[in-house]
Amino acid sequence: MDLFTFFGVNELSLGLSRLSMFPLFDTAHYIVSVMSLKEQPGAVEVAQRSPVACWFSSMLYCFGGAILSGMLLAEPPVAPLSNNSNMLLATLAWYLVFYCPHDLFYRCAAILPVRLVLSAMKEITRTWKVLGGVMQAKKTYQNGLLVMVATGWAKGAGGGLISNFEQLVRGVWKPETNELLKMSYPTKITLIGAVLFTLQQNHYLPLEQHQLMSLYTGFLVITKVRMMLTGASYPFAFVETALYHLFFAARATDTTSADKSKEPNGLPSGTCAADGKAVKAAPESCSHSALSHTRESASSVPERGKSPTGERDLAGAASKKTD
Amino acid sequence: MDLFTFFGVNELSLGLSRLSMFPLFDTAHYIVSVMSLKEQPGAVEVAQRSPVACWFSSMLYCFGGAILSGMLLAEPPVAPLSNNSNMLLATLAWYLVFYCPHDLFYRCAAILPVRLVLSAMKEITRTWKVLGGVMQAKKTYQNGLLVMVATGWAKGAGGGLISNFEQLVRGVWKPETNELLKMSYPTKITLIGAVLFTLQQNHYLPLEQHQLMSLYTGFLVITKVRMMLTGASYPFAFVETALYHLFFAARATDTTSADKSKEPNGLPSGTCAADGKAVKAAPESCSHSALSHTRESASSVPERGKSPTGERDLAGAASKKTD
Amino acid sequence: MDLFTFFGVNELSLGLSRLSMFPLFDTAHYIVSVMSLKEQPGAVEVAQRSPVACWFSSMLYCFGGAILSGMLLAEPPVAPLSNNSNMLLATLAWYLVFYCPHDLFYRCAAILPVRLVLSAMKEITRTWKVLGGVMQAKKTYQNGLLVMVATGWAKGAGGGLISNFEQLVRGVWKPETNELLKMSYPTKITLIGAVLFTLQQNHYLPLEQHQLMSLYTGFLVITKVRMMLTGASYPFAFVETALYHLFFAARATDTTSADKSKEPNGLPSGTCAADGKAVKAAPESCSHSALSHTRESASSVPERGKSPTGERDLAGAASKKTD
Repeated sequence: MDLFTFFGVNELSLGLSRLSMFPLFDTAHYIVSVMSLKEQPGAVEVAQRSPVACWFSSMLYCFGGAILSGMLLAEPPVAPLSNNSNMLLATLAWYLVFYCPHDLFYRCAAILPVRLVLSAMKEITRTWKVLGGVMQAKKTYQNGLLVMVATGWAKGAGGGLISNFEQLVRGVWKPETNELLKMSYPTKITLIGAVLFTLQQNHYLPLEQHQLMSLYTGFLVITKVRMMLTGASYPFAFVETALYHLFFAARATDTTSADKSKEPNGLPSGTCAADGKAVKAAPESCSHSALSHTRESASSVPERGKSPTGERDLAGAASKKTD
Repeated sequence: MDLFTFFGVNELSLGLSRLSMFPLFDTAHYIVSVMSLKEQPGAVEVAQRSPVACWFSSMLYCFGGAILSGMLLAEPPVAPLSNNSNMLLATLAWYLVFYCPHDLFYRCAAILPVRLVLSAMKEITRTWKVLGGVMQAKKTYQNGLLVMVATGWAKGAGGGLISNFEQLVRGVWKPETNELLKMSYPTKITLIGAVLFTLQQNHYLPLEQHQLMSLYTGFLVITKVRMMLTGASYPFAFVETALYHLFFAARATDTTSADKSKEPNGLPSGTCAADGKAVKAAPESCSHSALSHTRESASSVPERGKSPTGERDLAGAASKKTD
Repeated sequence: MDLFTFFGVNELSLGLSRLSMFPLFDTAHYIVSVMSLKEQPGAVEVAQRSPVACWFSSMLYCFGGAILSGMLLAEPPVAPLSNNSNMLLATLAWYLVFYCPHDLFYRCAAILPVRLVLSAMKEITRTWKVLGGVMQAKKTYQNGLLVMVATGWAKGAGGGLISNFEQLVRGVWKPETNELLKMSYPTKITLIGAVLFTLQQNHYLPLEQHQLMSLYTGFLVITKVRMMLTGASYPFAFVETALYHLFFAARATDTTSADKSKEPNGLPSGTCAADGKAVKAAPESCSHSALSHTRESASSVPERGKSPTGERDLAGAASKKTD
């Protein structure tokens, strides 16, 4: 890409792509991840009741991506545990964030400028993780584009994707929500990154690896900082809405007729009639779901930032939610 | 087996055993699987809210067997994703069934004769999958009869066996039910198939592989068509009941005494008294369970074909339920 | 260690370390495990409704450790199924405990002296399992101390650690509890064992393998027998409390201030205010949790030995709970 050479940023991006994540960026990732765990409802109470569960939960936040991508490729999910220095750093971050006297560590890290820097550094690790996942999958599946996307996504946004099971460790169970039903900002942006890096690795993009790394990292950092400072919304919301309307929503208006067609004529069961009603009852069932959600989370502590509208509260959540 | 040669069906069965599942039979399997997903309560609503979750759920319906058997043998669960043409077909089936304008595709496929043919073709793929699972396990565990049965069963009925987790993707959680607690017809018939193929592969049956394949496939197709047309019940229900009474039920009448014996005399806990009551309370607890079940499913949409009697509603369910 | 030689117990411990677990000790483990399953609320009812689910649940009790440690190291979770003689023994134990006419088998095994011997034998297998797990992990991760601890723990206490999913097989779902949130005695003691054996295998302990095996086995057997006979509490309770106060509790008194600090100043979301309340509401949420717990378990049968105090009822539970 000549523009890169022209502006002399080619060397810069090459230098960036050789940056080592260990120890500084990894540490920032651990601190921000454990802080977002601490901000989950009920997490502080769990930290007091059972440090072991809290530690395990923190490690799922810190290493969820590596664990999930490992499992997808049938590699040992304990592999991250064998990296002693990273485990030590993550454990230190966990201890300081949760049990530091007078909560000094958390208080300092939560000051906006500090948190901004830490969050930006954490975002930088995402590029490395997504690329790592894509290349890990490419070793085994040379032509498996989808496998590369899945593994890159899993490695970059693993903590979010396994959140149901991470919550289970803390005694919280919210089956009504998961990252596939309602993707958070980090999950979406990681999916886009996984697709881009997969295309790049298979030479479908007119970019070299270090160039895409710089562009994606820059985008991640700028968006994150902007969202934290101004509460701006997810930048691709309109693209997403357009795609949704193009491919899925137009058809969704046919539901009423779809319901009718859904009674498989002549099938012996005779139980299908209920199904038509079922789908019409969907709007009501939404509120049901929200209700049961509330009941579920009430068993630990009230949930923060509940959004009855569901889809569009990504911006607010982004500064809270880890991948 | 001379009967095979005598009737000249040996060549026929040999020809059948060389049939390729790709692309026709696989496509039928994908269409029927995605259609049964669409007939699940709440699935259409999920398709509108989150196409990603709906797609993932569909893939679990289509490739659940391959994923589960892969996991059992510690092979990568993403392996099915690497098969690009099958993924494309399954994704196409998913898109057409859920989002085709005016629901045209689903309506056509749900017409009884079309659905009959598709379902019969899907049943044929079951034979190949069960045999594939058994042989996959045999590679690693030459003497592990149980491993072969388990893997064959998992590969042939994986979608059903992981249904709890498939539902979780769609935000539905019904812990009270699973395919082990109350097996559906496809799960049972696949288990029988896995046992038969394991015995055949280890030369305990006086049949060659292609002969058993023909017999089992024929049985699957005829039973399925009969069940769809006449609503006939599961053909082995009486064998099952007889076996149950022979091995398990006779003893079950001893429960009252069993309860008493369950107070481990002299053990220090002193909490066992409640247990005797617990078991006596079982009939009542059944209705409790049904209630909570209702409450659970009410959070999405009313469940279809609820059977308070539990065990004997296989026939009706069979035409609905995928493997 | 000269004391060992001095008292002439070195030969004894060497002999003990060469003891074969198969078939006697393994059988005792299976019988005691299946008996503790039978003593779970609702288990007898499941045994009557679905022998398959009951068998599967029993196998998870018997082989949970091997399955979990296999999964952690990306080895096939079906591997235990390939050991035909052990499966046969475990299946026999399952059948006799659940379906023996007049419940004769369970009644005999539940007589205190018989149960004492069986439980002691089961505890002996724990040493072998923990050591096996540690050495299994050491093959792949020579320097991964944490991996060794995790695998040893998983192999020795797997049944307990996967109890949430074992319960799911029986249609019971209790997300509020798990072995990490509230460790039972066997889980704790296995963790200690896994740490000790990991240290020994890496030459951080002035003990040889057979010596540590004897010491740990002796401790396990004596503690178990003492707890069953006198209802004595967990011997390390005071150490645990001291450690907790040293590392975690002192900081926990800062929660009120921690809550305040948890409002990340200047962050755009504006939803954090609820979080402060959330944590203060924790004591109330506890009773909520207990309530929902009751509701959950009421769907099967009333739970035995419910402990509202939570942490300190280990002794009573120890004689009930399997590994």
